Amino acid sequence: MTNDLNVCLSPALIPLYNVEDYIVVVVDIFRATSSVCYGIENGAKAIIPVSQVEECAAYREPGLDYLLAAERDGKVVEGFEFGNSPFSYTKEKVKGKTIVLTTTNGTHALHLSRLAKKVVIGSFLNLTAICNWLKTQDENILLVCAGWKNNFNLEDTLFAGAVIEQLKGFDFKLDDAAIAANDLYQMGKYDINDYLKKTSHSKRLKILGIENDIEFCLQVDLTTAIPVLEGDRLVKLRF
Amino acid sequence: MTNDLNVCLSPALIPLYNVEDYIVVVVDIFRATSSVCYGIENGAKAIIPVSQVEECAAYREPGLDYLLAAERDGKVVEGFEFGNSPFSYTKEKVKGKTIVLTTTNGTHALHLSRLAKKVVIGSFLNLTAICNWLKTQDENILLVCAGWKNNFNLEDTLFAGAVIEQLKGFDFKLDDAAIAANDLYQMGKYDINDYLKKTSHSKRLKILGIENDIEFCLQVDLTTAIPVLEGDRLVKLRF
Repeated sequence: MTNDLNVCLSPALIPLYNVEDYIVVVVDIFRATSSVCYGIENGAKAIIPVSQVEECAAYREPGLDYLLAAERDGKVVEGFEFGNSPFSYTKEKVKGKTIVLTTTNGTHALHLSRLAKKVVIGSFLNLTAICNWLKTQDENILLVCAGWKNNFNLEDTLFAGAVIEQLKGFDFKLDDAAIAANDLYQMGKYDINDYLKKTSHSKRLKILGIENDIEFCLQVDLTTAIPVLEGDRLVKLRF
Repeated sequence: MTNDLNVCLSPALIPLYNVEDYIVVVVDIFRATSSVCYGIENGAKAIIPVSQVEECAAYREPGLDYLLAAERDGKVVEGFEFGNSPFSYTKEKVKGKTIVLTTTNGTHALHLSRLAKKVVIGSFLNLTAICNWLKTQDENILLVCAGWKNNFNLEDTLFAGAVIEQLKGFDFKLDDAAIAANDLYQMGKYDINDYLKKTSHSKRLKILGIENDIEFCLQVDLTTAIPVLEGDRLVKLRF
């Protein structure tokens, strides 16, 4: 039977799908899912996504060795170890650690996807690894773009298009959003960073002075680990 | 001040916008807004959009001269004058008449947009007319794609991209969805019918045997009338 390969362009559209029938790939390129992929690759034991700084702070308990990552307006919140920059998720910092990561859009998308057959985390960093794994699964696939406060964004959609590019030769049925995402990827693929320069989020991140993060997050196949949701935490998928 | 030019890719995303701050253009290319544009152009006094066949039937009252248009699964419902095909909205049939039109996606989008500064109806048929009018308004513009049961669809998005193509030289701030819609239009503009052949809805309509309708709805600038929502009905905008 032909499986579906669908793209959900905003978390607000997740209720249109029976996520129980899908493997869901959550995508939040700038920067949550990129940092998660990098952190898990670098040996983090687990990453717990939460949506509020206060929730994150609640993990600061005596005797527990959590790393707490919280950021607001592009700056690390006082009293926290680090923020959302992938550069914080190096081997030296995260190996063997459990990290509590504050991320609004990513956490929202994960929460709404939690009843899926499996929820995995995608980014350009682990693009080919996740595509190769998806090819072996014989399941419907839903690529969930975390967007920005439920709004459509181009960087997550372009990544979805990159996944489709690797999967479309296989026996999948694409919906219109998947066709559109792949066509947008065709337009941007030769220089994704340049293509995204016209977008709202890139401008916002540029103002925040984190262009290095953007460049980092757009590197293809830097990692091979696939983070998977188990309960409330993301761990390395074993297969 | 620079006005916003935004694209809402699904009625489910309308709540993300303060529609009170926008002129909204509702788009449902196959076939509701195309038929509405053609009907108003051809002298229909008003078109009342409803979502259910039963609501439509409720307008069948003695002494009232409504034309009732209801269709299910691509066929005119028994006892109704006609369905959603634009070919039903000729001058001979609709001039001077008030039509009650059953349309699920279009009515849904109109209902959610009703508090906007103005709600107008767009289709390829009145593309340049509506763009020329929008250029004179000095307001934020939200192009609402009616989609298919809240799902993203390519034909409505491509039309949004065609509107942006005409407006983008002016002083507007585009959101990511507007950028994406315009880029998709760039890919499809040389043969929109051909581009849309790979989409879900075209396949569905083809199965229904209404390819002539599709071809009709993709004609550019056949009409100049701009339908506008007044209360519960669409009438010709006077300006």
